[in-house]
Amino acid sequence: MMKVAIAGASGYTGFELLRILRAHPSVSVTTITSRQQKGVRLDDFYPAFKHHYDLVFEDTDPEKLADQSELVFTAMPHQASMEIIPALLARGVKVVDLSADYRLRDPEVYRQWYTEHKTPELLGEAVYGLPELYREKIRKARLVANPGCYPTSVILAVAPLLRRGLIDAATIIADSKSGVSGAGRTVSLGTHYCEVNDGFKAYKVGEHRHTPEIEQELSVLAGSNVTISFTPHLVPMTRGILSTVYSNLRPGVQKSDIDKAFEDFYHDEHFVRLGADNLPVTLHVRGSNFCDLGWKVDPRTNRCIVISAIDNLTRGASGQAVCNMNLMSGLPEHSGLKEAPWQP
Amino acid sequence: MMKVAIAGASGYTGFELLRILRAHPSVSVTTITSRQQKGVRLDDFYPAFKHHYDLVFEDTDPEKLADQSELVFTAMPHQASMEIIPALLARGVKVVDLSADYRLRDPEVYRQWYTEHKTPELLGEAVYGLPELYREKIRKARLVANPGCYPTSVILAVAPLLRRGLIDAATIIADSKSGVSGAGRTVSLGTHYCEVNDGFKAYKVGEHRHTPEIEQELSVLAGSNVTISFTPHLVPMTRGILSTVYSNLRPGVQKSDIDKAFEDFYHDEHFVRLGADNLPVTLHVRGSNFCDLGWKVDPRTNRCIVISAIDNLTRGASGQAVCNMNLMSGLPEHSGLKEAPWQP
Amino acid sequence: MMKVAIAGASGYTGFELLRILRAHPSVSVTTITSRQQKGVRLDDFYPAFKHHYDLVFEDTDPEKLADQSELVFTAMPHQASMEIIPALLARGVKVVDLSADYRLRDPEVYRQWYTEHKTPELLGEAVYGLPELYREKIRKARLVANPGCYPTSVILAVAPLLRRGLIDAATIIADSKSGVSGAGRTVSLGTHYCEVNDGFKAYKVGEHRHTPEIEQELSVLAGSNVTISFTPHLVPMTRGILSTVYSNLRPGVQKSDIDKAFEDFYHDEHFVRLGADNLPVTLHVRGSNFCDLGWKVDPRTNRCIVISAIDNLTRGASGQAVCNMNLMSGLPEHSGLKEAPWQP
Amino acid sequence: MMKVAIAGASGYTGFELLRILRAHPSVSVTTITSRQQKGVRLDDFYPAFKHHYDLVFEDTDPEKLADQSELVFTAMPHQASMEIIPALLARGVKVVDLSADYRLRDPEVYRQWYTEHKTPELLGEAVYGLPELYREKIRKARLVANPGCYPTSVILAVAPLLRRGLIDAATIIADSKSGVSGAGRTVSLGTHYCEVNDGFKAYKVGEHRHTPEIEQELSVLAGSNVTISFTPHLVPMTRGILSTVYSNLRPGVQKSDIDKAFEDFYHDEHFVRLGADNLPVTLHVRGSNFCDLGWKVDPRTNRCIVISAIDNLTRGASGQAVCNMNLMSGLPEHSGLKEAPWQP
Repeated sequence: MMKVAIAGASGYTGFELLRILRAHPSVSVTTITSRQQKGVRLDDFYPAFKHHYDLVFEDTDPEKLADQSELVFTAMPHQASMEIIPALLARGVKVVDLSADYRLRDPEVYRQWYTEHKTPELLGEAVYGLPELYREKIRKARLVANPGCYPTSVILAVAPLLRRGLIDAATIIADSKSGVSGAGRTVSLGTHYCEVNDGFKAYKVGEHRHTPEIEQELSVLAGSNVTISFTPHLVPMTRGILSTVYSNLRPGVQKSDIDKAFEDFYHDEHFVRLGADNLPVTLHVRGSNFCDLGWKVDPRTNRCIVISAIDNLTRGASGQAVCNMNLMSGLPEHSGLKEAPWQP
Repeated sequence: MMKVAIAGASGYTGFELLRILRAHPSVSVTTITSRQQKGVRLDDFYPAFKHHYDLVFEDTDPEKLADQSELVFTAMPHQASMEIIPALLARGVKVVDLSADYRLRDPEVYRQWYTEHKTPELLGEAVYGLPELYREKIRKARLVANPGCYPTSVILAVAPLLRRGLIDAATIIADSKSGVSGAGRTVSLGTHYCEVNDGFKAYKVGEHRHTPEIEQELSVLAGSNVTISFTPHLVPMTRGILSTVYSNLRPGVQKSDIDKAFEDFYHDEHFVRLGADNLPVTLHVRGSNFCDLGWKVDPRTNRCIVISAIDNLTRGASGQAVCNMNLMSGLPEHSGLKEAPWQP
Repeated sequence: MMKVAIAGASGYTGFELLRILRAHPSVSVTTITSRQQKGVRLDDFYPAFKHHYDLVFEDTDPEKLADQSELVFTAMPHQASMEIIPALLARGVKVVDLSADYRLRDPEVYRQWYTEHKTPELLGEAVYGLPELYREKIRKARLVANPGCYPTSVILAVAPLLRRGLIDAATIIADSKSGVSGAGRTVSLGTHYCEVNDGFKAYKVGEHRHTPEIEQELSVLAGSNVTISFTPHLVPMTRGILSTVYSNLRPGVQKSDIDKAFEDFYHDEHFVRLGADNLPVTLHVRGSNFCDLGWKVDPRTNRCIVISAIDNLTRGASGQAVCNMNLMSGLPEHSGLKEAPWQP
Repeated sequence: MMKVAIAGASGYTGFELLRILRAHPSVSVTTITSRQQKGVRLDDFYPAFKHHYDLVFEDTDPEKLADQSELVFTAMPHQASMEIIPALLARGVKVVDLSADYRLRDPEVYRQWYTEHKTPELLGEAVYGLPELYREKIRKARLVANPGCYPTSVILAVAPLLRRGLIDAATIIADSKSGVSGAGRTVSLGTHYCEVNDGFKAYKVGEHRHTPEIEQELSVLAGSNVTISFTPHLVPMTRGILSTVYSNLRPGVQKSDIDKAFEDFYHDEHFVRLGADNLPVTLHVRGSNFCDLGWKVDPRTNRCIVISAIDNLTRGASGQAVCNMNLMSGLPEHSGLKEAPWQP
């Protein structure tokens, strides 16, 4: 059994990692850390794990983490991650970072959208952990930057079309809708039940920090700089992201070209399910690592509308992180990720 | 007290009419009809109205309706409305039609998206009941076509920009999200609690019947034919529509032009509230006739993103219908519509 | 127009007071206070009130409150209320207190369940503001203790049966279920959307502070000391309380006795609606001051099961407070409370 | 791999069986049947299962079912089950019946609450499938009657107390609250999203068909006839049942007796988790086979209040059915049921 640790395990992505790893046949969680919950038993803090884990939250000490594990998931806020990752790597431990700290390759872009980067020298080494795009690099990586939830849903929606040049990259608009767990477990008025229930809103329009992350990867796929409109919305539900991604077809492109691009690109991908006209629904992927994709070509406007559905905590965070761990460790890619989605 | 009747009062828009009219100081509901509930007391069918109404559902007979009322709200499915409206008008009764039957001015467009129209001769006479656009015509109308819920939210979002030519009409994309009451009270798997709760989906992408209605009105505003992308989504909530409307700025247009267009257009409108940077939230308009508008100009993409929030049953149907009734009857426009929104 | 003020207006009961009073024909809100929001415009803090109020939160100063109003609603936490109420009364201002400070007549019971009382001398004067039980006393009161939400739902459910001696008071069990707004607007993990949504739990079993309040009033009705079991539960919804109240029938009591007791007791009460076999549903009272009651007599167990439904923010707090204000001020009891419930 | 079939697989319990069995290491689902969906691919009907199953719904023919499987889950409505079970048993196939047809041992009680029983001769043979009570009998059974969801939650809550004679059986009141999936997938106004969302109600008070099932098992535990009050309620959530069970302590019984009874009874039970003062929450068991129990002894009323939480579709139906299959087939009891609950 491979020993792994979770640094910052008291939030929702930490919990989701623990839930998934519990069913993983080749991995054992040896250590969980949390600054605030130090000394608290996991199953007291989170009774759902009673009869499943016998763990106590420890302080977040990179030395101890390195002693007790071969791979560490860092599920802490950005900035906190980059404070311990260099020490972990130095001790020979592999890292899957669920924060935003190593997703942007350009430290100047990081500075603009977040803050000054403390270890820019690692940015070139970190691999962006979207297996459908970087599988081979992930296999060899010692540091994987696990993608953001929104970027996962948007990038997978248009990757085949951009790579094949079927759409005009300058016209991409991603209108995304997320469940509340994406805001994390920290209390705030914005996640108060009565402020969310039976309501709907957009937020951070044109300013969300996932924008440069999406643009970075779309630019790679397009082979040139891409700027997009990205609008996140808050849905009164716990889990799930649905992204509706609009773009104009390049001249001469037919619906059959679009269909074929998706088929070719995702043909062998277990975790991407193509529905074509059967549009995806977040309930159909809940609790799973799937990204469901559907699309329409609208002849009236000559636009392609791609719709993607993921579970923001699984494919958008911890499930993808486990998939990356599998790849980095030579384990079967789907190991621990075989459960069917939760419905109803 | 003006006598009014509701034909097809057993659905959600019928209920909402009854709720609003209960608080109206100058109107008395004399008759409610329903083919299926004929003979049933309103407060047995809908216990919320106990101690409020002493009415029994009657059969939908235009003669009786005309005898017992000066104005009829037709809250029936499309096709059913146009079967009784001519007889009502012939008897000198005014009509606010909540169905889609008289919204499209071109019978050929109606045929394409719905079915053959039975009374195309009335299409020219019917006034599209969006007071901010057609107030004076509504005052004189005997037949008002009450706008659809999605069209209300989209048209109000871009009317000022199109009228002033600030945006490129060919780039308009309306991404709309609606609560479940928009699907009506008829049972179906699509509205089963367990198929909706904690999930999110798009539907009828590129095919929704509200598309030609939106385009008709945007074309009038733009002064030329407008074709848009319109995508409806289903939100796990009962009431509310939020529309996120994207468009490219025309060359040279500044944010201040956009701001000024909204200010000028809606300055005297009680039922439109401008938030500018304070983006609208559906909970803030619930149960009211308000349309809240907010917008961002994104310098990175040169796009304007307008967000509108309405209650689909109030501003998107029955509240607007009462507003139209007020205008048609010489009553104060806000009569019966002065309650504050419901929050939390 | 009578001038009223709201001390502690930034919470949900404050908002609900403002919503109701907006539609009240004889009252004008002159002053709202909030320690935390001092200086903030009401419609900035709570955009739903835009176009409705032109008020700014002020500091909670009893002198100012007394200068600017004839009646003050104190919608503050317990303890805070009793700090300003004596000064208000001394200035000749009437008070409806929405906190628990003046609900218990015995200062020793207050001490046991809350803390030491600072003005025990006022406990004898304060009238318990349940109009169905204390209407005449309320009319003459200068200080009304507005009942708790759970107590309102439980007391109204068994009052007719206890007064007539039809049930064994020692067997009363009240199993109550409340929406989340009952927990107030303060943020906490317990009201985080993801901790509430799609879940259900009991809390404070056998320890909830509303227990002595219920027992005090049931004892008055029974004419002897009553001790009950009371269990509150949290429902994933915003508004509403449903209480299921069990008790054993006294020997010889028939279903017809129970029916008659309810009929006789509530015959002239506008705000209590009797459904008998048609059991109440919280959705049917949402946003209204109604208490809907239904009951079953179970011949198998010789028990009576009464079910009551109220809106916890309206009948359980602010609606009842306005009703009390009406009574104290010689206004019609239903003034400002005539709207139909919100459904769907 | 053991071959199993599911008769009536298109409802929620059928789906839940398929979800659980997908993760079962020793079982293969060979056949699924549905009268209405005959010929439809499972992953068309239920896209969540894409990439998981390659099955088509077949007609419900007992001969075919017997040919293709060693054990059949009958997940059909009552009456439909007893039409095919005799033929299955005659062909040597074991059966776990999820309907109510074989839960009541007395055909006269079945007749009273349901209808005439067609195979009363099998009632004596069928074993009530609650492993904590009948584990050894289940191991040897060829027909297991899988318990109802409410009965599972109520029986487990008081079994230790009744068996030890700590409570007065005549005082038992079970107040139960269930998510909407308990009503099944069939469409009806009662499960329409807008009729459920943000509301709460009781239903079938004193008349629910699970009452005799609960009483049958409590009578066995008490050693004498037990009659209870049972009240089901509908919670606006998809999954979960929480039962609050009240009873009076027998004279002289202390809290420590209650604690010890629970400890002793459930000490070795993996699927029952005792929280004592930490009261259970349905979210903590979602998607799992756990039954979480907590309890309070209220010295003021001398009552014991036990609270139990289960997932109605897992422990209350399909999870328990798989557990029974495991026992009947000599497989480890927890096989396929090791996943952690779903939270958030």
